Amino acid sequence: MERVFIIGVGMTKIGRFYEKHAKELFAEALWKAIEDAGGVKPQAIVVGNMTSSVLMGQDSLGAMMADYAGFRGLPAFKVEAACGSGGAALYAAYALVKSGMVDVVAAGGVEKLTEANTEFVTRALAQAADADYEVFYGATFTGLNAMVARLYKSLFGYTDEDLSHWPVKMHEYASYNPYAQLPRKTTLEEVMESPLIADPIRLFHAAPLGDGAAVVLLVRGEERAREIARKIGRDTLIEVASVALATDSVDLTTRNDLLTMDSTVKAAREALQKANIELKQVDYVELHDAFHVTGFVALEDLGFAPKGLAAKLFKEGRFQKGDKPEVNFSGGLKARGHPVGATGIYQVAEAAMQLRGDFPGYKASDPAVAMTHNIGGISTIAAVSILKRVK
Amino acid sequence: MERVFIIGVGMTKIGRFYEKHAKELFAEALWKAIEDAGGVKPQAIVVGNMTSSVLMGQDSLGAMMADYAGFRGLPAFKVEAACGSGGAALYAAYALVKSGMVDVVAAGGVEKLTEANTEFVTRALAQAADADYEVFYGATFTGLNAMVARLYKSLFGYTDEDLSHWPVKMHEYASYNPYAQLPRKTTLEEVMESPLIADPIRLFHAAPLGDGAAVVLLVRGEERAREIARKIGRDTLIEVASVALATDSVDLTTRNDLLTMDSTVKAAREALQKANIELKQVDYVELHDAFHVTGFVALEDLGFAPKGLAAKLFKEGRFQKGDKPEVNFSGGLKARGHPVGATGIYQVAEAAMQLRGDFPGYKASDPAVAMTHNIGGISTIAAVSILKRVK
Repeated sequence: MERVFIIGVGMTKIGRFYEKHAKELFAEALWKAIEDAGGVKPQAIVVGNMTSSVLMGQDSLGAMMADYAGFRGLPAFKVEAACGSGGAALYAAYALVKSGMVDVVAAGGVEKLTEANTEFVTRALAQAADADYEVFYGATFTGLNAMVARLYKSLFGYTDEDLSHWPVKMHEYASYNPYAQLPRKTTLEEVMESPLIADPIRLFHAAPLGDGAAVVLLVRGEERAREIARKIGRDTLIEVASVALATDSVDLTTRNDLLTMDSTVKAAREALQKANIELKQVDYVELHDAFHVTGFVALEDLGFAPKGLAAKLFKEGRFQKGDKPEVNFSGGLKARGHPVGATGIYQVAEAAMQLRGDFPGYKASDPAVAMTHNIGGISTIAAVSILKRVK
Repeated sequence: MERVFIIGVGMTKIGRFYEKHAKELFAEALWKAIEDAGGVKPQAIVVGNMTSSVLMGQDSLGAMMADYAGFRGLPAFKVEAACGSGGAALYAAYALVKSGMVDVVAAGGVEKLTEANTEFVTRALAQAADADYEVFYGATFTGLNAMVARLYKSLFGYTDEDLSHWPVKMHEYASYNPYAQLPRKTTLEEVMESPLIADPIRLFHAAPLGDGAAVVLLVRGEERAREIARKIGRDTLIEVASVALATDSVDLTTRNDLLTMDSTVKAAREALQKANIELKQVDYVELHDAFHVTGFVALEDLGFAPKGLAAKLFKEGRFQKGDKPEVNFSGGLKARGHPVGATGIYQVAEAAMQLRGDFPGYKASDPAVAMTHNIGGISTIAAVSILKRVK
């Protein structure tokens, strides 16, 4: 099988873009990726998106994105897996190029959340949970995560302040990221004084609602990737060594353990195995921290911390500059932002740039191997990719 | 590249299943496919679906279908491309197995349309059109197709009665199909006396709203396929020689020609070319006839009739028993039914069974090569596959 490489990445700034249609955001990200790849164009387009059907009243999103960006006719479709739509789109796109059906594919994601009123958006995002067993009884997505946070705190003996170190650090990283939605620093005090959304989750413990789009261009074959890199004077190739996808139940009632995201554990193991990489070789990670507690549980389930200890280790300075792995220097979902179906692609674009050494924000310490981790729901779906720098 | 084969197919009857959740329908189709494959189980599941986000309030449908069917953990995601979701799911699933990422994949589709009130469903289905340029101004999906029918009639000199031969024939075929939603014959008079929905489209000119699910199991490699076939005493292999996907604009205002579905033309050409099959070799076709006119335009755009002549040729008896190709012996969307995101998979299951010789309805004349054609919107997306019988 031929290997797969990232030859271009493109992102929009994340924010509130009342004046832009989702197709404008997507086209911006796609053409930035094409420019980044020295003009190489996609032969197929996969679009990760969660809420277009409900919030935009628009289906056939794949064709619409392709058409507006100037690629009418190309194979294009939407992949939906809630907040993991971007990761699932990457998985599908990786298959398309790996299969030889196309040589270059755009793996993208786009989300437009800020045009509808917040109550309606809250309801749309709750569709990541089970309509009949959870949402029907009034559960919101933040409410379900609050249960997880409460259990994490009580079982492992943490205070709210302990967990609040995560957003403080994420905001610091985001302050260097030109694409971030919240590029501002914050303090423990500000986090702890922010309004409660669903006890114990406060506003500053949660990812913001934002609009954005991101695209990575995948190409099949080392030779083709080298030729493109040569043309644009880039001496580093970024290989997608593996992409793994795993699922769990949608409803939480039948989970084995509320504090272990089985699909994250499974996807991480498979991704490492397929890439023939050991966990200790991973230098850099972009992981899914929709809420502070999600970041900690993810660190544990990916294998970087024993169960229950991630928050303690993070507070002590682990997973930060100079450690191995370094984590979420983009600012994470918390502060870079979380344009739902695009998030999984932002992570891959950011990790690829960290490996190339040209991420225009808080820089990792010359990483050679990176991991990205994107989930939908409370890891109802998990996508994990391993990226490698190839000289 | 290893070749891809269909080793099992499963369908539910199409109808109104108030008492069944979409996951129950999907599990029924998936387990029928597994049984048909002698017990071979999928390693990944792709689910074509259009309306779950709007009508069920449920996202993460891929994971939900996998979990309920007993496959919690497997890679699974939803593909959305309006009424072409099934065809797009087939395309994505084909890539997964062709890439070697998995050896067996379930390409499935499911739709639950009959639980919501019809007005709401009409609005949900209109999301296949452009929300801003069409739906906002009151366009329904039937209304847009009525414009196409009106133009087809006036430009090529047809009467409503001329076009009504299509549903009469489709109902005849469906009367033999145990999975069909409308397994009853009809007459020209009944069709012509049925209520107008959007002039000139009458109730009996249009596909019904129905619930259903279908799954085909794809396996990689001739050797593996032969081994499975041997175990279950089947001497015929069904190869998926190609799957092609193409797109067009969502809104009709920027189309080149309202009576030519460019993406259907493109996908058909590519599918034939990739399969190394000439059009005249195609023995059997399952095509997308959401409305009578769609069937005729599809016949023309797939290459089987000169532009404007399909309705004339059909009235004269072409594309029926003994002709080449034979078309829609399932009863088509018109009478077999059109459970939107599942339709593209029903077609593949039916065509595969016709090639195997065990379709339990109106039988084709020993076909060796089949084509399936599934579209979303008015061919905003088109998926065409070529299936071959291999001895």
